[in-house]
Amino acid sequence: MSVLIVGSTALDSITTPTASNPRLLGGSASHAAVAASFFGPVKLVGVVGEDFPKRYLQLYKRHRIDLLGLQVLPGKTFHWAGEYEANMNNRRTLKTELGVFETFTPALPAAYQTAPFVLLANIAPALQHHVLDQMRRPKFVVADTMDLWLKVALPDLLKLIKRLDGFVLNDSEAQQLTGEDNVFTALKKIHKLGPKHVVIKQGSHGSILSGPRGLFICPAYPLRKVVDPTGAGDSFVGGMMGYLAAAKGPVDEHIRRAMTYGSVVASFCCEGFGLQCTTKITRAQINGRVEELERLTRF
Amino acid sequence: MSVLIVGSTALDSITTPTASNPRLLGGSASHAAVAASFFGPVKLVGVVGEDFPKRYLQLYKRHRIDLLGLQVLPGKTFHWAGEYEANMNNRRTLKTELGVFETFTPALPAAYQTAPFVLLANIAPALQHHVLDQMRRPKFVVADTMDLWLKVALPDLLKLIKRLDGFVLNDSEAQQLTGEDNVFTALKKIHKLGPKHVVIKQGSHGSILSGPRGLFICPAYPLRKVVDPTGAGDSFVGGMMGYLAAAKGPVDEHIRRAMTYGSVVASFCCEGFGLQCTTKITRAQINGRVEELERLTRF
Repeated sequence: MSVLIVGSTALDSITTPTASNPRLLGGSASHAAVAASFFGPVKLVGVVGEDFPKRYLQLYKRHRIDLLGLQVLPGKTFHWAGEYEANMNNRRTLKTELGVFETFTPALPAAYQTAPFVLLANIAPALQHHVLDQMRRPKFVVADTMDLWLKVALPDLLKLIKRLDGFVLNDSEAQQLTGEDNVFTALKKIHKLGPKHVVIKQGSHGSILSGPRGLFICPAYPLRKVVDPTGAGDSFVGGMMGYLAAAKGPVDEHIRRAMTYGSVVASFCCEGFGLQCTTKITRAQINGRVEELERLTRF
Repeated sequence: MSVLIVGSTALDSITTPTASNPRLLGGSASHAAVAASFFGPVKLVGVVGEDFPKRYLQLYKRHRIDLLGLQVLPGKTFHWAGEYEANMNNRRTLKTELGVFETFTPALPAAYQTAPFVLLANIAPALQHHVLDQMRRPKFVVADTMDLWLKVALPDLLKLIKRLDGFVLNDSEAQQLTGEDNVFTALKKIHKLGPKHVVIKQGSHGSILSGPRGLFICPAYPLRKVVDPTGAGDSFVGGMMGYLAAAKGPVDEHIRRAMTYGSVVASFCCEGFGLQCTTKITRAQINGRVEELERLTRF
């Protein structure tokens, strides 16, 4: 089955202590869509400007991502610039130019409206609502978010969370949303906001699912070197949703393995700037790391 | 087989945001010995003053801990006072009174010198050396440490690390020792200092082993409420060594499961002040949480 992914489609200028890379293909939807593409068909919803490089459209196409929902509008593509500190955990935003995203309200193609799996990747909650409004009885809807929306669009976000099957956020966002330091207490509080599945991402420490079948502690793949963590969280949730959409049977039977696959795609994402590493890997390499994670966690 | 444990035997005065508890039984050796006692015989090496409460001696005895190596000397018992911040991760030391530990140099009873498993729990490296010097061909020697010794006794500690089969430290200590933010690179560097087994503790994120059979990612048991984390690291390594000493066959075959048992004992430790929870649990409860951890990590 296919997964519909809406989120940002952007150009990222990323600086780390060792290198600087301008105008890479980035954005939550780009990372999530490429990650999901290893498992099955992906329908992308987004907007880019006339300056969007053709080679990035080619990249989407190489990953067989359906671009019927990607609008090309007069104006500039969303551009984000950020810089990482030496430990690669803290980053600061140097520039955010919304460009064509400022006025974007997508009208979904008919073929998109029946996609059974929907990933509302990180973007303004109003836009996530707008896409969800156009869907016809999706099977499983998951949203990701970021600290910014908790600050500037909390009422919208809370309304969105109520409509979700699954909500994904990182540990500091969970703390911000619930006021709870303890991740398991935070999970409990987030369930009360609506979703049956809540996933808290913990970066290099992996992630934790709380769902109808209880908790799952999902490991992160051990990486000796992180080149650029931008998009790792998007790759995680994209890989997870791609795997889920491709799996047969109830979500609860597959979600643990889906998270592990997402975690592995995120590990590859961290090993290159932007999508440079993710776009070079094969499904066999992903399977290899998942098997390795099984060996690394067995006792 | 039995495990010999040397470390601090202390009185801990612990303040958290919710309560204050003076003069609890504490110290690295106390926590490690009680944790190890659930699995097999333990021989304790330490020193206390004349002020050491009889009920704490009774507590050791209830756990069938061999006290032949526990000296009672004129003077005061080592006393530590500390205070935790609201998130229970950061703590500051309010008081450290070494008392009888200041001049302590243990002479091991003959029956202790042949113990096959040796845990040099956190204490000055010179004292860890001194105990190790008296051992006759132990099978498996592990040491724990703390940031203080990395600062004030690094040459002693480096010499000790060379003599170990296993070295256990937490993530910030690993960073301090190696200058590496990345835990997997840090593990590699620590192997070069000597030990075949290196374990990095990551608090509520679990721990990571690097050994002859590769990496193992050991989960932490999910806790909704941490009452007092004092001694959790000591309980972890004590439980691990107790389990290893009781297991038959090569260490490498059992160390993953041993760490998981240690992790579970540490989780109980965090649920009460000092040893208040650890001393109330049963082996069946420990087994129950280990089985639960298996379910929580399977995918």
